[in-house]
Amino acid sequence: MEGEGGKAFVGVDLGGTYIKFALVSGNIRILQRRKLPTPQEGREAVVSQMERGIREVGKEIAICGIGIGTPGLVDSRKGVVRGFTNIKDWENVPLRDLLEERMDIPVFVDNDVNMMTWGEYRCGGGRGCRDIICLTLGTGVGGGIVINGRLYRGHSMCAGEIGHIPINVRGPRCDCGGIACMERYVGNAYIVERTVGAIRKGKRSIIPELVGRDLSKITPKIITDAADREDDLAREIWEETGTYIGVALAGLVNFLNPERIIIGGGVAKAGEWLFRPLRKTVEKRAMSLPAREVQILPAQLGEDAGVIGAAMSIKDELIGRSR
Amino acid sequence: MEGEGGKAFVGVDLGGTYIKFALVSGNIRILQRRKLPTPQEGREAVVSQMERGIREVGKEIAICGIGIGTPGLVDSRKGVVRGFTNIKDWENVPLRDLLEERMDIPVFVDNDVNMMTWGEYRCGGGRGCRDIICLTLGTGVGGGIVINGRLYRGHSMCAGEIGHIPINVRGPRCDCGGIACMERYVGNAYIVERTVGAIRKGKRSIIPELVGRDLSKITPKIITDAADREDDLAREIWEETGTYIGVALAGLVNFLNPERIIIGGGVAKAGEWLFRPLRKTVEKRAMSLPAREVQILPAQLGEDAGVIGAAMSIKDELIGRSR
Repeated sequence: MEGEGGKAFVGVDLGGTYIKFALVSGNIRILQRRKLPTPQEGREAVVSQMERGIREVGKEIAICGIGIGTPGLVDSRKGVVRGFTNIKDWENVPLRDLLEERMDIPVFVDNDVNMMTWGEYRCGGGRGCRDIICLTLGTGVGGGIVINGRLYRGHSMCAGEIGHIPINVRGPRCDCGGIACMERYVGNAYIVERTVGAIRKGKRSIIPELVGRDLSKITPKIITDAADREDDLAREIWEETGTYIGVALAGLVNFLNPERIIIGGGVAKAGEWLFRPLRKTVEKRAMSLPAREVQILPAQLGEDAGVIGAAMSIKDELIGRSR
Repeated sequence: MEGEGGKAFVGVDLGGTYIKFALVSGNIRILQRRKLPTPQEGREAVVSQMERGIREVGKEIAICGIGIGTPGLVDSRKGVVRGFTNIKDWENVPLRDLLEERMDIPVFVDNDVNMMTWGEYRCGGGRGCRDIICLTLGTGVGGGIVINGRLYRGHSMCAGEIGHIPINVRGPRCDCGGIACMERYVGNAYIVERTVGAIRKGKRSIIPELVGRDLSKITPKIITDAADREDDLAREIWEETGTYIGVALAGLVNFLNPERIIIGGGVAKAGEWLFRPLRKTVEKRAMSLPAREVQILPAQLGEDAGVIGAAMSIKDELIGRSR
């Protein structure tokens, strides 16, 4: 087999606002990047924008394959996006066939969280493991599962919804229809909501200062800044948030006995303010053997996890490595 | 390959009180059964009792292999029982090697819940699926996981502890050291405790009559008998129990998107009193796609799941079917 460094793959990460593109070498270096707005007119415009971005990052080199991560439910075997409501007409799109026809290059399509998980597994925080769980904390809480070195997709291709593990029998209703889902406590908006609630109740904090008294400007980043400046409320908010996530993860540690849990996404940027209570909760609440064995680590690829995972996915698909 | 019906395997199920033995044909019919007391003197006596039972059920036929399910942590690759506190000296026992030496027949050893899971997967409620979860409800709540048609054991061989998934952030401490584990609400003793508590608080019920006013005689079976006779308290107890189990399962349905969940063990004999609220809770609380797809079914092999699973395990091991 020729040196893999000579081959290049394109990874595409479709979001509601931007489409990110990267040209990735066989030995996993990003050679080119591009970011284009996501067209709002519907599927034809999105597919054309994808083609444009792929051609731009790949114009100086022969591309061996294209991997695409998209939000929503994806049938990766057929390369079909089953559905995603935030992009117009992005439902039952045979994305693989559409792009293969236009580009004449092999295409692999999967859910964006699976792509991130695969990126972290192959070249990030999960490298060298067999069984990992990947968690992404942001507006929502997503997750991916690697078992026996393969992405586990589940019976209807929708496995990994870690954010929708209930952490209480009774509690607030979640957007998914469930009750007391973990996401309902630690999704971006809910972290902010708890913070605003505490400030309105008179809890002392420097957070109102940091946002010029406009509480609608509070974000997880602001709360982290406040925690860095020894703000008690901010630290309590992260302590609570880490505990909630830790309760769900303690259950998964007992159930799945994973080797590593990799945590990324915007909210994970709170760093040790979040990871310390989270790890402490897992240590205290999960059974001693699996709790001792599991490593809980921040994701390593940051914003690149999606495009790198997508590029690795098509690469692995082409060399016949089972995913 | 010759007709499998001509081959026979012995399945052994080690419990704290009894060791069960079955001679199982290649086409999964139980040809012989035996039940011997579990010696309390320690490992040598237990291994000798196993040898005796195996020779008894297998005396009229050539046995191709022996499968043994034992409680506790088992390293099935090495055939070593890592530890189990309820049987004296049952720790770091190289059970496979000990028995292979005595019997000169291939032996396979695994955790008892994994054996039951494998039995249900191969010849019971999970037949024909790829991804199932098995749940056994009794004094404790155990579980097994089949993924891609193989038993999933986890990084430290201790996966499947469904009973130790927390269902509340705050709640009673569990024997495992965790907080608000599902088992802490639905283990045998806790079902009884809730029932006794309600009766002591003056809740009307026919249960005291059924146990001749001796509340220490209440068992899940008694509660089921009372529910059959239209006892409101008994029905409420099962409703609650099904809800608690359903909350944990809703999380697993979202996380793992399994094809089937198979539920056995003594407490599952409550039948529809338990299954109805359990299924209703999963339907209401899990996300619509995985909730619609999953089937939640009672185990089919009953008390035989352990010995059949053990026999199937060694059979599959010998024919090289990956487990």
